[in-house]
Amino acid sequence: MATTLDTLPTPSLLLDQARLVRNAEQMRSRMAGLGVTFRPHLKTAKSVEAAKFILGTPPGPATVSTLKEAEMFGAAGITDLLYAVCISPQKLESVDRLRQSGVDLKIILDSVEAANAVAAHGRGTGKPLPALIEIDVDDHRSGVHWDDQATLLRIATAMADGAELRGIMCHAGESYDLHDPQSLAAASAAEGSRMLAAAQNLRTAGFACPIVSVGSTPTALSAQRYDGVTEVRAGVYMFSDLVQVGIGVCGMENIALSVLATVIGHQRDKGWIITDVGWMALSADRGTAGQAIDQYYGLVCDPGGQPYDDVVVLRANQEHGVIAARPGSNAKIPDLRVGDRVRILPNHACATAAQHDCYHLLDENNHVAAVWPRFRGW
Amino acid sequence: MATTLDTLPTPSLLLDQARLVRNAEQMRSRMAGLGVTFRPHLKTAKSVEAAKFILGTPPGPATVSTLKEAEMFGAAGITDLLYAVCISPQKLESVDRLRQSGVDLKIILDSVEAANAVAAHGRGTGKPLPALIEIDVDDHRSGVHWDDQATLLRIATAMADGAELRGIMCHAGESYDLHDPQSLAAASAAEGSRMLAAAQNLRTAGFACPIVSVGSTPTALSAQRYDGVTEVRAGVYMFSDLVQVGIGVCGMENIALSVLATVIGHQRDKGWIITDVGWMALSADRGTAGQAIDQYYGLVCDPGGQPYDDVVVLRANQEHGVIAARPGSNAKIPDLRVGDRVRILPNHACATAAQHDCYHLLDENNHVAAVWPRFRGW
Repeated sequence: MATTLDTLPTPSLLLDQARLVRNAEQMRSRMAGLGVTFRPHLKTAKSVEAAKFILGTPPGPATVSTLKEAEMFGAAGITDLLYAVCISPQKLESVDRLRQSGVDLKIILDSVEAANAVAAHGRGTGKPLPALIEIDVDDHRSGVHWDDQATLLRIATAMADGAELRGIMCHAGESYDLHDPQSLAAASAAEGSRMLAAAQNLRTAGFACPIVSVGSTPTALSAQRYDGVTEVRAGVYMFSDLVQVGIGVCGMENIALSVLATVIGHQRDKGWIITDVGWMALSADRGTAGQAIDQYYGLVCDPGGQPYDDVVVLRANQEHGVIAARPGSNAKIPDLRVGDRVRILPNHACATAAQHDCYHLLDENNHVAAVWPRFRGW
Repeated sequence: MATTLDTLPTPSLLLDQARLVRNAEQMRSRMAGLGVTFRPHLKTAKSVEAAKFILGTPPGPATVSTLKEAEMFGAAGITDLLYAVCISPQKLESVDRLRQSGVDLKIILDSVEAANAVAAHGRGTGKPLPALIEIDVDDHRSGVHWDDQATLLRIATAMADGAELRGIMCHAGESYDLHDPQSLAAASAAEGSRMLAAAQNLRTAGFACPIVSVGSTPTALSAQRYDGVTEVRAGVYMFSDLVQVGIGVCGMENIALSVLATVIGHQRDKGWIITDVGWMALSADRGTAGQAIDQYYGLVCDPGGQPYDDVVVLRANQEHGVIAARPGSNAKIPDLRVGDRVRILPNHACATAAQHDCYHLLDENNHVAAVWPRFRGW
């Protein structure tokens, strides 16, 4: 007998297969049209089954955010991997081990300190590690500032004896604060042109810079062209979420991920419905709090996946969610009884998925077509 | 060779054994002094090893927030358990299975709907389930309002044929918004007196109400007396966290939990240090955001566990943390190099611990004395 939304225990993490397929296909054809290699980020999925489903045949290319991801995906045959978090010296031995096991793992760094450590390590082992220099294109996190030519060249120089400079990469994270197509297209254009300037600095100084890797779901979905960029990375796009809808790069119909909840009570005088899905199942991510429409801890849908207008998870405790009208709206709360079920769309797909050990893949009848294990840890 | 803070991979979850012992002992003696049974909440720990360490010899009493906790702790011999989230009809079969396996699991409910379902289930199986009615003492989440005598009696009546009314329970969650001893003592006193009023309503109407169970870490640490209360529940107290420090019920020296991070870069012009500990290792919980001192995503300490004044994790991405001076302070950022280590104190112990698969228990020399697995899921 098919497992359905009536028979699943709650909380359960649901993944709409048709939406996943569509999101993956749209991005793949978009990148093909723009003439760049696409290197999907697997940190959102953290599932070998999901990765193989999205990527088709291994060996990649793909992106990871932890050595554990490199280990798990590498063991599954997805071996062309970029570890897109700056390396610490302590992790170099694990990188060596992974490479010896057949994983073509590339690392990144953004300082002379780290370049010195990686180069010294490579001289010690006699096996220079392939590395990219992270470039800061928008002041939001890591990287050498894109027009800081002096530091960039010092890093490249420090890498020369003991590391293998493969190119440069960036993450255009400031795009998460944007919400109109013009600004997003401009952010994407700036990402590309600033990376090209940095690549040119390296090349003019005599350093090879074959890879120019950019990324973020909002800019990847907004780019008009990718002159000089060789590859693009993005992860959230495959599941999508309310933050991406708020940014404007997708619609509600793209959100493939949701959490199934059961009603366990009411506070009718307050207009509250209480469910068994709190932050443990949703995460405490409030990524829409600063957007035009605050979705609180998630947007509530009927079991078929249709959102109720302006009905949100207003509060989340560990194993309790309080469903209510979005403050400021006049939303009508659905008439639900104890035992009834709802689905919650997540603010942030990566964070919500991370709270679960598996995906329940839903077919077009909302039957569970497969259960895909997730892993976690570092 | 001992595993130390230099040799552990990062991120790692650290648990200070001496602080854990002290927190557990202080609460145990406090509750003994107040003459009530203490039923620790194991949702914070989610570890059989930690629970046995805190509880001493099984079989409890203890509190759980999921059936998975009941299953795991029950199998380990901790069998006197209260499942402190209102039951849904779909979970009753699992409750039966757990009880048949020897777990003395009590459930809770707060509506006539749920009472009818539990009673009908008990009539069907011929084995009435022991249940408590949840009382709302402070308008913050679930429960029958403490002075809504009519609904309380309707629920008790609905339970009469098919369920076993054991008493009443509440969670004094509004105490999390308080921050001075007088208000906290008053909240604790109100919690007790309102519960006593509800118990009296039941007893006057001829219902037995042997258990009067109250709880929350802030009220448990603030109560002056517990007249008529038979048991107290609390969970966070064992590890403590920055939210509890902000409430004022403990000090920094009580926080037993921290996350070990490695420096992976700097943005010196911005006063930022970048580490490999983001929200994946800390959780996205911003529980101190509304308190007098906002700790952002956590307070930064040296490897010995001594906090740097006003240095916080200002931003958290999935696997990146941005360490900076607390906005508004003139804090001096420590002079750290790539590869150096820091410890991050968490906003919310339950949420941060939930991001990890084990605790690294630290002895007085900050050596790893034991590794305690954690479980998760529902």
